[in-house]
Amino acid sequence: MAYERVLVERDGPVATITMNRPERRNALSLAHLRELQEAFDEVGRSAATGIVLAGAGKVFSAGHDFADVASADLHDVRTLLTTCTRLCETIQSVPQVVIARVHGLATAAGCQLVATCDLAVAAESAAFAAPGGKGGWFCHTPMVSIARNIGRKRAMELALTGDMIDARTAYDWGLVNRVVPDGELDKAVGELLAAATRGSRRSKELGKQTLYGQLDRPEADAYALALEVMAAASQTPEAREGMASFMEKRPPVWPG
Amino acid sequence: MAYERVLVERDGPVATITMNRPERRNALSLAHLRELQEAFDEVGRSAATGIVLAGAGKVFSAGHDFADVASADLHDVRTLLTTCTRLCETIQSVPQVVIARVHGLATAAGCQLVATCDLAVAAESAAFAAPGGKGGWFCHTPMVSIARNIGRKRAMELALTGDMIDARTAYDWGLVNRVVPDGELDKAVGELLAAATRGSRRSKELGKQTLYGQLDRPEADAYALALEVMAAASQTPEAREGMASFMEKRPPVWPG
Amino acid sequence: MAYERVLVERDGPVATITMNRPERRNALSLAHLRELQEAFDEVGRSAATGIVLAGAGKVFSAGHDFADVASADLHDVRTLLTTCTRLCETIQSVPQVVIARVHGLATAAGCQLVATCDLAVAAESAAFAAPGGKGGWFCHTPMVSIARNIGRKRAMELALTGDMIDARTAYDWGLVNRVVPDGELDKAVGELLAAATRGSRRSKELGKQTLYGQLDRPEADAYALALEVMAAASQTPEAREGMASFMEKRPPVWPG
Repeated sequence: MAYERVLVERDGPVATITMNRPERRNALSLAHLRELQEAFDEVGRSAATGIVLAGAGKVFSAGHDFADVASADLHDVRTLLTTCTRLCETIQSVPQVVIARVHGLATAAGCQLVATCDLAVAAESAAFAAPGGKGGWFCHTPMVSIARNIGRKRAMELALTGDMIDARTAYDWGLVNRVVPDGELDKAVGELLAAATRGSRRSKELGKQTLYGQLDRPEADAYALALEVMAAASQTPEAREGMASFMEKRPPVWPG
Repeated sequence: MAYERVLVERDGPVATITMNRPERRNALSLAHLRELQEAFDEVGRSAATGIVLAGAGKVFSAGHDFADVASADLHDVRTLLTTCTRLCETIQSVPQVVIARVHGLATAAGCQLVATCDLAVAAESAAFAAPGGKGGWFCHTPMVSIARNIGRKRAMELALTGDMIDARTAYDWGLVNRVVPDGELDKAVGELLAAATRGSRRSKELGKQTLYGQLDRPEADAYALALEVMAAASQTPEAREGMASFMEKRPPVWPG
Repeated sequence: MAYERVLVERDGPVATITMNRPERRNALSLAHLRELQEAFDEVGRSAATGIVLAGAGKVFSAGHDFADVASADLHDVRTLLTTCTRLCETIQSVPQVVIARVHGLATAAGCQLVATCDLAVAAESAAFAAPGGKGGWFCHTPMVSIARNIGRKRAMELALTGDMIDARTAYDWGLVNRVVPDGELDKAVGELLAAATRGSRRSKELGKQTLYGQLDRPEADAYALALEVMAAASQTPEAREGMASFMEKRPPVWPG
């Protein structure tokens, strides 16, 4: 697959998908979103265990591209937003652990991507914003994922003021898992992803998908789902091997 | 409209609604709640862009008025609570950004109001509590909004102990957006409200209403709603102007 | 009732239920879970106002017992998980305030118990983990309650990495209500439980059950439920006495 707007690189079990329109601050045009979708589909089918989502140039991503939207009709904007929403669903359903590598700025749909990834690490100089409300086109869809990571008052503050928050605040609010000095960003992303992808790939795939599946349900419904998945998972080769190796005090050998 | 228990003041684009029964610690009697409802309805129809909810005297509000409830029958208590719930729904549906200005004490339904407002700023000497459980009449309805601002264990602690938390703890838990020295309360409220009301009033109205609408839905349902709203919003004059002015590097001129 | 794997002790209004298989790190075998269920049922029917859930020996609980699961078929694992889920439902529906006394380690279903209790106090040397994902059998059901106490990114980090977090982090994330020096654990548990059980036992019973009932519903549904409960509760002897004693500035005398 040849991409024009996205870089896909492999380094052992890790694939890095880089938004590569630095001259547009990695703005999420329709063509860019479609390539990101293809890249996640392609890597999702591969043997990779982890995916880093990164941005080339000075910022992570500035969100949707006003040049795309400003003169688009309703049909075209729906197509753009449907494509973006489908990408977010894909990020949460691929078998791999997906981690956002955030530097510079992540705004609007760019911030939505950070909120959507399973994990996120930010450089300490990074900033986050949902500026649509300030600018006349409120960040309705970005706030779906952002508000599910942070508290209600904080979501309102971010969306209504449009002001930036720094990486430390994003960490305190639960939007990112780590904040590190800028020079240590790649190292920290690699370490957290390595920790998150240890063990059985199949177990993590089922785990992340089920966690998203149960998270928004009422607690009793969530238990009903999680219980059936966990019971079924106990019969898989990876669970058997995990428990056997633990009891036999030997390193596991993962199947599949 | 003449009010007996509420003050309504205008200062440019900001309306301040002040609970004005200081001798009753701004307790939320039925008559008081009905005037608050009328005040929010009236200001909601006005051209104001922001609303400050404040309390006169030593405290913000001590919640429901036991003098009202202690000898009331089931019908009358239902009327009281229905009126209070409708006020909370109104606060979240008026076009304006609503900010709580909290000083002294916000307890029970008073704390519910803080949790319900879009934003909240507290004086550092302010305190918050849900003391009903301690007193024989558990804060069932206040905990609907309070629990949606703070974590589950914290909600249980607040409701079961009935103990007060200070403003700094309320901030750490996400119940308020700012804590400031007492003498800087009005300044901080004004600054946050000014930031939150910048830009297009229509965009913020649609934004806050949609954010509350999507927040409690499962994520896929939330996206379905937010996507349609955001696509439709892209066609409005305010979105067109916002994007055009951004691309033309000029200040926007907001319609409507 | 004679228990083999559980200790049940009474001290005035407080019952302590201690998981007592220290040689198995209080692993939650089917037999152990069934005794815990019986103990909560028994104490739930008693006049106790508070329940401490504790673990004997070096750790709180290490979760499910691999010796139970490793060679069990689907039917037996479903029985185990159904029993565990029913215990969690019981903890949240007994009339008493339930507080976890956490020392050493609370992992997997052990961490689920901490997340399930109404309140939790941890010794500062305690640690928490959901290591199943690392080990081949993802913590699907533990994450139902754990994820409802902490943020989304933090839940993913805990479940995907399997790494331990310390007590201070658990506190920052809202998983526990207090962190105290190890030597002050029993004192802190007693103080928080005493504060949480003050007042009318009946009011707290209705309060905690309704709070769990409304917490996972959309806000309007939550208000519909909480409003009816709160109106009905206003007519109970405990609410009448609470309000009367408050207005008459005398200590309340609780009925029932």
